[in-house]
Amino acid sequence: MSTSFDIWPFIKMHGLGNDFVVVDARMCEFAVNPERASIIANRRRGIGCDQLIIMRPSTTADVFMEIWNADGSRVGACGNATRCIGKLILSETGQQQITIETDAGILTAETAENGIRVNMGLARLNWDEIPLAHESPTDTIVHSFGTNTGTHGTDVGTLGTPGCVNMGNPHAVFFVDDVESVALSTFGPELEHDALFPERANVSVAELLDGNIIRLRVWERGAGITEACGTAACASVVAATRRGLIDRKATVRLDGGDLLVEWLADGTVQMAGPAELVYTGECSL
Amino acid sequence: MSTSFDIWPFIKMHGLGNDFVVVDARMCEFAVNPERASIIANRRRGIGCDQLIIMRPSTTADVFMEIWNADGSRVGACGNATRCIGKLILSETGQQQITIETDAGILTAETAENGIRVNMGLARLNWDEIPLAHESPTDTIVHSFGTNTGTHGTDVGTLGTPGCVNMGNPHAVFFVDDVESVALSTFGPELEHDALFPERANVSVAELLDGNIIRLRVWERGAGITEACGTAACASVVAATRRGLIDRKATVRLDGGDLLVEWLADGTVQMAGPAELVYTGECSL
Repeated sequence: MSTSFDIWPFIKMHGLGNDFVVVDARMCEFAVNPERASIIANRRRGIGCDQLIIMRPSTTADVFMEIWNADGSRVGACGNATRCIGKLILSETGQQQITIETDAGILTAETAENGIRVNMGLARLNWDEIPLAHESPTDTIVHSFGTNTGTHGTDVGTLGTPGCVNMGNPHAVFFVDDVESVALSTFGPELEHDALFPERANVSVAELLDGNIIRLRVWERGAGITEACGTAACASVVAATRRGLIDRKATVRLDGGDLLVEWLADGTVQMAGPAELVYTGECSL
Repeated sequence: MSTSFDIWPFIKMHGLGNDFVVVDARMCEFAVNPERASIIANRRRGIGCDQLIIMRPSTTADVFMEIWNADGSRVGACGNATRCIGKLILSETGQQQITIETDAGILTAETAENGIRVNMGLARLNWDEIPLAHESPTDTIVHSFGTNTGTHGTDVGTLGTPGCVNMGNPHAVFFVDDVESVALSTFGPELEHDALFPERANVSVAELLDGNIIRLRVWERGAGITEACGTAACASVVAATRRGLIDRKATVRLDGGDLLVEWLADGTVQMAGPAELVYTGECSL
């Protein structure tokens, strides 16, 4: 059990502006609870981050990745953090490819031209895997949005009907003509909490640009509009492929930068993009 | 000249939630320009802080304190940073009292029961020292606010007339019955840019509570509403004393916590409060 008297080292990293405090607890104890996670994540009185990432020993992979949100909640998947942990373990081991165990399964990472490429695992597409509250095709949801929330009254019907994908977390992707004109800060929270999503959902709006580019804006479950959500980028390529809009592969242009995403023939999704080490530190919080 | 290949150490501190990256450049070169300051201050892709503080050699004091805002601008005074630098130099030297040279003069620091006590220098009270655009008594400003900005049209007249004090930076303090009910995010920017203040102003609303406590909310010049502004706390005690509301000494209750402030007989202002070291780091930005 760590106490406040211990000094512990950490690494500060980010992927497209999604930032992480990374603690290596493979050779030592590092106890986290929701309160401690939120103290560390506080940007003025703590270290500051979107997610606290704890590296722990794994018996089935090179490392286990434990993910805590800034609000103290645990989360199963984070694409940007996976690239960052991949970068650290690739550098440490000198291997061509490494494996990362997560609550959402075992992921792989390797070096890519634009940073780190990770395999984010299977895109799950059954309605009860998303999960949805009722049976529906997931490529084109059959559901009347907005009628069962009642709290906002926004006309979400203008967005059309989303494709839904689970990438370790639930995603709903709406394809629109102009993502910049969508009032995502209004639609996002309403759709996140729609009764269709018993575990809530990450809500994205996607626009097809020339050159096989998907412009994507994301409302992240529990976090709001973020600069970059790696799993949403993966979900958008799967959903666009199922609609016949692209051929399994695209550049996804997020507010924070570009990711290269491919839905492989084996059903898993590969994502490549930057992973940056900003500084190292020692803390006693 | 530092280059991006250098690794440089830093200390992350805060005073009442006002947070700082502190770099010790007394024995080495550390070149800062507005762009580099804002890159370091970026909370997701840099280290993250309200102000970057550079400690440089001084020929007249124990240390010179150089202050950069997160937006890349230079600033002459920062009360919370003064306590933090005071804490570092007191610990390093083992002296009872140390001196800090700033653009706004030489300040002193010593240990106090609630943290660090600093002397913030003279409260300057002449209209051209604030500075104001025209001659006026500064304890009760003679000026028609809002009529010369025209852009907002907010009825700032309901706030009454402020006392103005320069504490190394210009302050206007309005005394009101209930600070919590003041729309400071509306009044603040309008008054900051009023034609009365050629160098703009920090705008505070102050309420006298029982037990010689001033409840203070602050709109900081160039930063907006902040958790704690040390120089505003000093200005509020000077302005309240000149109005006959207190006897030179008070606890100032900011959103981020309490400061003990006293306007000494020699005209200088003493402020005592916490200064916290959060972590140390090494960076190459």
